[in-house]
Amino acid sequence: MASSAVNPDIARERQKATFDVDQLTYILYDGPAKTRRKRYLQNLVLQDFAKLKFKPVATLPHEEQYEQALDRCGRAAALEDNLALKDLRELYYFREAVAPQVAVPYGVHYSMFMDTLERQASEEQKAKWLPLAKSYRMVGTYAQTEMGHGTFLRGLETTATYDGKTKEFIIDSPTITSTKYWPGGLGKTANCCVVMAHLITKGVNHGMHPFLVQIRDFDTHQPLQGITVGDIGAKIGFNSNDNGFLRLDHVHIPRENMLMRYSQVLEDGTYVKPKNSRLTYGTMTLIRSGIVGQAARALSMAVTIAVRYSTVRRQSKIDPGAGEVQVLDFQTQQMKLLPLVATAYALTVASRNMTAFYMSATKKIEKGALEELPQLHALSAGLKALSGWEGTEGVEQCRLACGGHGYSHASGIPKIYGNVTPSITYEGENTVMMLQTARYLVKCCTMLKQGEKLPTLMRYLQQPLGGSSKLNARLDLDQLVEAYEHRAARLVHEVSEKLETAAKQGQKPYNAWNANSVQLVDAATAHSKAYVVKSFVATVSTMTGKLRQVMENVCRLYAVTGIIKCLGEFMEDGYISGLQSATLRKGLTDLLADLRPNAVTLVDAFDFPDGILDSALGRWDGQVYQALWDFSLNSSMNEKQVLDAYHKYQRPFMEYQWKKHPSVTVVARL
Amino acid sequence: MASSAVNPDIARERQKATFDVDQLTYILYDGPAKTRRKRYLQNLVLQDFAKLKFKPVATLPHEEQYEQALDRCGRAAALEDNLALKDLRELYYFREAVAPQVAVPYGVHYSMFMDTLERQASEEQKAKWLPLAKSYRMVGTYAQTEMGHGTFLRGLETTATYDGKTKEFIIDSPTITSTKYWPGGLGKTANCCVVMAHLITKGVNHGMHPFLVQIRDFDTHQPLQGITVGDIGAKIGFNSNDNGFLRLDHVHIPRENMLMRYSQVLEDGTYVKPKNSRLTYGTMTLIRSGIVGQAARALSMAVTIAVRYSTVRRQSKIDPGAGEVQVLDFQTQQMKLLPLVATAYALTVASRNMTAFYMSATKKIEKGALEELPQLHALSAGLKALSGWEGTEGVEQCRLACGGHGYSHASGIPKIYGNVTPSITYEGENTVMMLQTARYLVKCCTMLKQGEKLPTLMRYLQQPLGGSSKLNARLDLDQLVEAYEHRAARLVHEVSEKLETAAKQGQKPYNAWNANSVQLVDAATAHSKAYVVKSFVATVSTMTGKLRQVMENVCRLYAVTGIIKCLGEFMEDGYISGLQSATLRKGLTDLLADLRPNAVTLVDAFDFPDGILDSALGRWDGQVYQALWDFSLNSSMNEKQVLDAYHKYQRPFMEYQWKKHPSVTVVARL
Repeated sequence: MASSAVNPDIARERQKATFDVDQLTYILYDGPAKTRRKRYLQNLVLQDFAKLKFKPVATLPHEEQYEQALDRCGRAAALEDNLALKDLRELYYFREAVAPQVAVPYGVHYSMFMDTLERQASEEQKAKWLPLAKSYRMVGTYAQTEMGHGTFLRGLETTATYDGKTKEFIIDSPTITSTKYWPGGLGKTANCCVVMAHLITKGVNHGMHPFLVQIRDFDTHQPLQGITVGDIGAKIGFNSNDNGFLRLDHVHIPRENMLMRYSQVLEDGTYVKPKNSRLTYGTMTLIRSGIVGQAARALSMAVTIAVRYSTVRRQSKIDPGAGEVQVLDFQTQQMKLLPLVATAYALTVASRNMTAFYMSATKKIEKGALEELPQLHALSAGLKALSGWEGTEGVEQCRLACGGHGYSHASGIPKIYGNVTPSITYEGENTVMMLQTARYLVKCCTMLKQGEKLPTLMRYLQQPLGGSSKLNARLDLDQLVEAYEHRAARLVHEVSEKLETAAKQGQKPYNAWNANSVQLVDAATAHSKAYVVKSFVATVSTMTGKLRQVMENVCRLYAVTGIIKCLGEFMEDGYISGLQSATLRKGLTDLLADLRPNAVTLVDAFDFPDGILDSALGRWDGQVYQALWDFSLNSSMNEKQVLDAYHKYQRPFMEYQWKKHPSVTVVARL
Repeated sequence: MASSAVNPDIARERQKATFDVDQLTYILYDGPAKTRRKRYLQNLVLQDFAKLKFKPVATLPHEEQYEQALDRCGRAAALEDNLALKDLRELYYFREAVAPQVAVPYGVHYSMFMDTLERQASEEQKAKWLPLAKSYRMVGTYAQTEMGHGTFLRGLETTATYDGKTKEFIIDSPTITSTKYWPGGLGKTANCCVVMAHLITKGVNHGMHPFLVQIRDFDTHQPLQGITVGDIGAKIGFNSNDNGFLRLDHVHIPRENMLMRYSQVLEDGTYVKPKNSRLTYGTMTLIRSGIVGQAARALSMAVTIAVRYSTVRRQSKIDPGAGEVQVLDFQTQQMKLLPLVATAYALTVASRNMTAFYMSATKKIEKGALEELPQLHALSAGLKALSGWEGTEGVEQCRLACGGHGYSHASGIPKIYGNVTPSITYEGENTVMMLQTARYLVKCCTMLKQGEKLPTLMRYLQQPLGGSSKLNARLDLDQLVEAYEHRAARLVHEVSEKLETAAKQGQKPYNAWNANSVQLVDAATAHSKAYVVKSFVATVSTMTGKLRQVMENVCRLYAVTGIIKCLGEFMEDGYISGLQSATLRKGLTDLLADLRPNAVTLVDAFDFPDGILDSALGRWDGQVYQALWDFSLNSSMNEKQVLDAYHKYQRPFMEYQWKKHPSVTVVARL
C-alpha cells in the first residue's frame, strides 16, 4: 500500500454520524468486554496470518483452495490451544478469522460429526469414540444426502442389513443414485463417517438409523475394501472443502457401530425402539437459528463492502455545474443499499431473538411442556428459509450495486455469495421448509375453529380480519407490525378455507395441498416476515438516546420496504388503501434521505476487520483503487509478461491467419 | 456413459406434448432450412471437439480457462475458413459451439475493435489498418472504462495531448484511477488498442476521441515503452478472457493514429469538428439489442436444464400412498420454472422485434427522418436493462430450482450465470440505462402538453388515465396489454407531475430529478415491460393451430406473473380491483397446470445440443446421475487417492492433535 491515509470522503462520512458507533457495536457483541475479546481473538489470527501472504482464496483452483484451508487450520491449531477457548461465540469469532467465509475441511468433523456422536451414541460408545474423535484419530463427517435423494429422508436407498451369524451390519449402496453425495470433508479428509441408512433386521425395515463406518485406513489414509470415495468436483463456492461421494459395496461393520443411544439392535437381531422420537427436534432448531445468523452475517459483510465503496466511488453529476458525486448520493443507490443495511440488522436481531426463544422454550420442554415444540419448529423452518432468501439475494444486490468491480473477486462479494447461497438448498430446501411452516399454520386454524388457545407466536391469528390499516405519515412501528400480522393472518385463513372447501368438495387432501401450495408458501413467508418485523421492533424499543432514533428508522425502513415489495398482498382485501400506498412510498424515500448520513457508521458498527472482509472495495480506509491495483498485479496471469499460452496457442493461430493474407504489408510499428 | 437409453420419465414428457416441437423451433430459427444449417454448423464443431475431451471449463483456474479458450479458437479457425461463413447469425451459432457461454480472448478484437475501425477510421486509415486487423497482425481491443470511471464518460482521465512540433499525440494516464481497466483481451492477448482519451490540442480539451495505440511488440509480444499492461485477476465468470489493465506513461503516437473519420486534428494542431454527432446512436442500439438476445439465450439454456432435470428428479410424495413424484409435479416447482420458460420466450421475441424495429427505423433515419432516433434509443436502453435483470435473476432461479446439485459446476448453470450477469453493469449500468429511458418518457409528457404528437412506441401515453381494468377470468391478452400500458402511463405521468410541481416550488431540476429517481426507474421499467408484453402478444397472434393455443398461454403466463409480482402498482389507483387480483392468482395456478404437460417440449424447442448446454442435469436423454458421477470422477481432486496435501498439511495437523492426547487408546480398525 502506497498510501496509509484514510480516503477523505469516507472520513467525512464518519464525522457526519448522529450516533456513537461503539454503542451499536456493543449491542451486537454483548457489551464492551465481549467486543474487546472478539477483537483480540480475531486480530491475533489476522496479524499472524498477514505475514504469510496467502493468495486470495476465491481466485485459486479447487485443490489449492483445499490446501490453503488445511494450512490455515493447521497453523491455527496451536493458537487455539494457547487460548483454550471454551465459549462457543469466542470459538466462532476465532474461526471466522482463520478462514473468513470459507468452509474448512474439518468443519463437519467438529460440528455435525462430534454432535451426532454426543447425541446419538450410547454412553459406552461415547467413552470409546469421543476420545478418538477429539484427538483426530478419527476425522469424521456425516453422510445422509444421496445423489438421487435429499429432502425426502425415506427415499434414501442405502441399507444396513444385520447378519445375526457374523453379528455385523452389511452397509450397501446398491445403485448410482444411492451414492452418498455432498457431505463436507468426505472426499479426501475424513477417515470415518456417520452413515445414515435403512436399518434392516430379521427382514424388517426400521427406517433411517446412524452407523459409524470407517472409510479410510487410519495410517495410510487409503480407502478400505468396499469403499469408493472421492471429491464431487468444483462448485460455485465451498471449494476449500472436499464435498465428497461415497459408495459402499457390502461393507461389513460390527453390530456395535450402530449408534445406539435411542434405538438398538440386540445380538440376536431384535430391534428395540426408541422411547421418544421428538427429542431431536431441538437440535434441528438450533442448527437453523445458526443458519439465520450466518445469513445475517454474510449480508452484513456484503453491505459493509458496498456502502463503504459507494461513498468512495464518485461517478456522474447531480448538479451539472458541480463535480462528480459519491454514488451513495443518488437516490437509486440508496434504494439499493439502505434497505439491505436494514435487512442485515433485522436478520441479526431475528437470529438472536430466535435463539433466546429457543433457550427459554427448551427449559419449558425439559420440564415436560412439549406444546412449545411445534411453534418453535415451525418458526425455525420459516426463518431458515426467509433469511436464506433475503440474505442471499441481498448479498448479490450488494455486488451489483458495486458496478463492474463487484464482478471481480477483488470485491470479495462473490466469495461471500458462494458461501451463503447453498443455505437455500441445504438443511432442508427452502420451499419445503416454508411448506412445513404452512402445515403448522393451517393446523392452528383448525385449532382455532375447535376453540383451542393458540401458542404465543400464533396468537395474532385469533384477531378478527376485515377492517383497514390506520397507517399514516408517521409510519408508526406498531401500525407496521399490525400490517404484517394482518397480511399473514389473512393469507393463512384464506388458504385454510380453500383447503377446507376442497375437502368438502371431495378433493383428496394431498391434491388440494399441492394445488394450493404456492399460496401456502406465501402464507408461511408472511408469517415468518411478521415475526422478523415484530422482533426487530421489540429489540429497537429497548435502545436509548440518539441510537434509538436511528435504529427506529432502520427498522421502519425494513418494514416499509417489505410492504412495498409485496404491496398487492396488503391491498387486495382493502387493508391498505391507494392513499396509504402513496404515503408509504413517500415515507420510503424520506427514510432513505434520513439514513443516508449514518450509512457508513451503520455498517462500521458490524465491526468487521479488513482481514475478514477480504475486499479491495470494502476497506475501512477507503483506499479502494490502490487495493484493486495490488489485487490485479497478483493475478496468476501476470507471473510472466508473455505467457506460454502465447507461444503454444496464440502465435500459431496468428501465423495461420498471416498465411491466409500473404499480400498484407507488414509493419514493425504503427 | 454406461447407459444410452433415454430416461423413461423424460421420454414420457415428450409424448405428452400437444404441439409439434419442430414448428416452434422453426419459428425461433427462421424456418426449416436455417434450422438445419444451425444444427449442421454446431454439430460440426461439437463432434470435432468431443474427441479432444476438454475439461469442464468452469472448473479450471483462470490461466487454464484462458489457455483452453485460445486452444478452442485456434482449432476452430480452419473449420471456419472451410465453411467461409458470411452470415452473422451463422457465425454466431458456429461460435456458440466453439466456446459455449464463454467470452474468448479474441472476442473484442473481432467485434468492437474491428467495428470501431470500420466506423470511425477514415478511408485512408481503413485501407492501412483493416488488412492488418483481419490478418491478425494487429490483435486489438477497445479501452474506454477506467478503474475510477465507467458510465460517466466525461469523467475519464486519460489524455491525448497534441504536440505540434513532433506531430505526435502524447497519451497519458496520470493517476491510478485513470488506469484503463476491464477491456476484454487487453491483459495478455492484444497488441493494439483503441484508447478513448480526452483530446487536447492548442491547450483546449475537445472531449473523448479514439486513438489507435500499439501496446506490444508485433514480434516479441513484449509491452512497448511507457506501457504497463496485465490481467486484472479472477472474476465470477469471463475467466477464459484476459480482461486487462493498461497504464500509458507519456506514450507517443503519430498524429495519424487518431481515428479521423469524424473529427480531425490537422498537422498544425487545429481541431476540426465532426458534422453530425448523432450517427453513433444506431450502433449502440444494435449492440443493446444483441445484449437482449444474449440474456434471452442464457435464460433459455438455464431453463432447459432446470425443466428437464425437474422431470427426471423424483423427490417426496404428493399422494402418501403412491411413489415419489417428478418434482415438476409440485405446484411450487412449476411456479419457479414455468414463468421463466415464458420469460425466455418473451425476451427472445423482444430481441427479435427490437432488431426488426431498428432495421426499419434505420431506413427512415437514412432518409433523414431523425425523429425515430430518440424513441429507439430510449427503448434500447430500457430493454437492455430489463432483459439483463430478468435474464440474470431467472438464470439464478433456475439454478436454485435444481436443489443442491445446481450449486455444482456439473449443473452448468453457474457458468451461464457468470457469463450473463455482467450485462447488468456493462455497456451502460442498468439503473443509469433506465434513467435515460425515463428522461425521454418525461420529455414525451412535456411534448403531449404542448400538443405535439408522440412517436409510435409512446402513443399509449396519450390515452386518458382513470378508469378501471376490464380483466376477467378469460385473461384476454389485449386486456393484459392494456393493463401494462395503463400502469406505465400512470407512473410516467405521475412522476412527470412531481417533477413539474417541484420546479414550480423552485426546486432545482437536477435535485428534483434525483429525489424522484426511484420512481423514474419504476416508470421506465414499466414502459419497457409494456413493450415486451405487447411485442410478445403481437408475435403470438401470428402463430397458428395448436402451437398458437400453447403460446398464447405462455404469453399469458408471462403477463400475469409480471402483474402479480408488481400487483401494488396496478392496484394503487384502483385500476385492478381486489376481486381481479384473486382472478389473476387463480388464473396463474390454472396456467401452470395447463402448461405443465408441454414443459419439456417448450424447452426442447430452443434446440440446444448437449454440447452447448454442457450440463449433467440438462441432458436431452435425462441420464443425469450417470453424468454427475462422470463429472465427479474427473475432479482434479481425484487424480490421486491420497493427496500431497494430506502429507503436507493434514497428517502433521493430526499428529499435533495426537500428541495432545497421549492417553487415547489407538485402534487400527473400528
